[in-house]
Amino acid sequence: MDYRSFFPKTIQNSLNNPAPGAWMPNVPCGAVRLSAGYPDPAFIPTHQFTDTIEKLIQEEHDLPFHYIGSRYTAELRQWIVDHLSSRNMVVRPTELLVAAGAFQAIDLVARILLDSSKAVVVEAPTYMEALEVFQNYTTDILSVPVDRDGLCVDTLEQMLAERRANHLQMPSLLYTIPSFQNPTGSTMPLSRRQKLLSLAEMYDFLVLEDDAYGDLFFDKAPITLKSLDQTGRVIYVGSLSKVLGPGLRIGWAVGPEPIIHAMNWFKKDLDHTFIEAAVGCFMGRIDWNARLQTMRQGYAQRRDIMLSALKEHMPDGVTWSVPDGGYFIWVHVPGVDTHALLDIAMEAGVSFIPGNYFYLDTEAPRDYLRLSFSYVSAEDMVRGIERLAGAIKTFQLS
Amino acid sequence: MDYRSFFPKTIQNSLNNPAPGAWMPNVPCGAVRLSAGYPDPAFIPTHQFTDTIEKLIQEEHDLPFHYIGSRYTAELRQWIVDHLSSRNMVVRPTELLVAAGAFQAIDLVARILLDSSKAVVVEAPTYMEALEVFQNYTTDILSVPVDRDGLCVDTLEQMLAERRANHLQMPSLLYTIPSFQNPTGSTMPLSRRQKLLSLAEMYDFLVLEDDAYGDLFFDKAPITLKSLDQTGRVIYVGSLSKVLGPGLRIGWAVGPEPIIHAMNWFKKDLDHTFIEAAVGCFMGRIDWNARLQTMRQGYAQRRDIMLSALKEHMPDGVTWSVPDGGYFIWVHVPGVDTHALLDIAMEAGVSFIPGNYFYLDTEAPRDYLRLSFSYVSAEDMVRGIERLAGAIKTFQLS
Repeated sequence: MDYRSFFPKTIQNSLNNPAPGAWMPNVPCGAVRLSAGYPDPAFIPTHQFTDTIEKLIQEEHDLPFHYIGSRYTAELRQWIVDHLSSRNMVVRPTELLVAAGAFQAIDLVARILLDSSKAVVVEAPTYMEALEVFQNYTTDILSVPVDRDGLCVDTLEQMLAERRANHLQMPSLLYTIPSFQNPTGSTMPLSRRQKLLSLAEMYDFLVLEDDAYGDLFFDKAPITLKSLDQTGRVIYVGSLSKVLGPGLRIGWAVGPEPIIHAMNWFKKDLDHTFIEAAVGCFMGRIDWNARLQTMRQGYAQRRDIMLSALKEHMPDGVTWSVPDGGYFIWVHVPGVDTHALLDIAMEAGVSFIPGNYFYLDTEAPRDYLRLSFSYVSAEDMVRGIERLAGAIKTFQLS
Repeated sequence: MDYRSFFPKTIQNSLNNPAPGAWMPNVPCGAVRLSAGYPDPAFIPTHQFTDTIEKLIQEEHDLPFHYIGSRYTAELRQWIVDHLSSRNMVVRPTELLVAAGAFQAIDLVARILLDSSKAVVVEAPTYMEALEVFQNYTTDILSVPVDRDGLCVDTLEQMLAERRANHLQMPSLLYTIPSFQNPTGSTMPLSRRQKLLSLAEMYDFLVLEDDAYGDLFFDKAPITLKSLDQTGRVIYVGSLSKVLGPGLRIGWAVGPEPIIHAMNWFKKDLDHTFIEAAVGCFMGRIDWNARLQTMRQGYAQRRDIMLSALKEHMPDGVTWSVPDGGYFIWVHVPGVDTHALLDIAMEAGVSFIPGNYFYLDTEAPRDYLRLSFSYVSAEDMVRGIERLAGAIKTFQLS
């Protein structure tokens, strides 16, 4: 039976896009996974979390198993509000939605704000799964380059002015990862952030700020767009995926009440009471700031190890970003098709993400790759970089 | 700032529908909650589940906290396949999607199959949250009545024939809860099921079978539409919400591979590794069939207690359904507006769901209500029915 006729036209179109997760390399056993944007296993509080669940059940019995009833789901919401407040974001309860990870929050924002009649601006390169999401809703996706200081707001301004002058469709949403960007690791300075917000006001668009890595700064906390937003232009998404564990699926969106209201309208997986209660209870039992401090130091050390290894092993001409936080280093390998390189690298026992996946297909440069310094051990990381350098040399000789 | 202009037209329309959860009564403290479609707290394996999580972490350490990696998420999928096989449904891995509850699965089916160009058939009455979902996608929702034998397929046939004769939009999807229906408790006999499938073939529509209560039969297992489906017309959704705990958010959809493929495309909350691994591990450690058997006996006893209490206390003229499984009894209170009755009942210390919420607004009869016998203790249940009977008498005198 042919099911295509059952799919509405927009769904048929979306199904022609690259498949979700098509970017994920099928890493062979034993290879060093510099592709994995996972947290350091040492920072996952496995036993403390198990103890918390035990305490939770002792105290609340069956409540966390029901649709509603646990007091700790409310405590999780309060914890999020307090945590955001520590980064100068003032959030009322009606301005917060707890989601199953930042990814679901991004999808809900796209769900309520995008369809074929709307245009969205993304960074180039950007988080590949956000591209997947946006392509499910609209074909009108405009790219603005990222440099070592993040989104090029001057280029954005020029593009907006030209589109307005030429009566082209104006974007209603811009998606940015302003701090420790995925994949480049770059961070927008304050001046660019302020200019972005004034462009949002001038050209009447909303800003979706993805701050998945914002708490993992190595030096000083970046100032979020949300905390600078005076006019209700910013929808902010955050997550525990990078600081506690992505398998828990705890993220959030905060934004103007009508936006959060609409997102709640379309969030049809209900509340994840058990896991939200467990995390809410956990947060009340630990010193989160001390944990974060430890993680910041740990990831900074990991970054330094990777930077040293790159310096030691990479052939001339290869360059890379130096991030001030987060998980990622963005590597430029001039003249090397990193898509083809991946096959050689995996044979040599190391994986990465080819850079083209972080761009819309049509415009993708082929000689970038993303490395993650978050997950594998220090020894493996050095070994992985050695192997990668070897693979690049092999490619260049071939 | 007015955000309405940022919402696409279809979203603006959806936001005009009744708010999600508007049906949920704000039950006063101490009232008997005959409104709650929750499992019996005695059947929630709180400590066994906690022990399982402890074992899981001892064995797998940080794996369940990551995006992928736990072998127990695969075991959960296998458990679902085996469980469905015990009810004569043969499912290949590519025909299964694990969702965050049946509700998310229903939303994903609607997401890929419905938009303003499509029509869907629902039962009247039906699960109110499914109505919420469908109304987010299309205004073309056709109702077919339910009697004590479930969906009236003759009425459906007549409607389809008339629509075809009059060149009206034909439905591409029909949503049904064929076993222990929510809210009526009714179950379709085999002959109606067979006829429904032949109508699906004749009029070229797909069938969304919601079997949330199917495992909780009191006498014999109902034969699912899915197990009768020879032509790939049925998408089946199930869940652990009613047999383990809704707060875990574990459900599934099984159906033709192209349908499941498309649902996966739009499922943007990723895999819930931690909870899926915990449930997968739990299922491997317990005798699920023995548990189900105990639950069936327990809920059958609860049903009998509620039926006896209804018989003893209800005034003349009030009638009710006698379900062979599930959680619910559907009560007809002729001439009583159950929406107004709810205020009196809650004052008297008992809650229920007014029947009108289970219908599309325009056609809702006002003199039905849904009772749940699943959640409150036997003593409370009897007390609740007494109070409800008192409230009905008060209403009738007023």
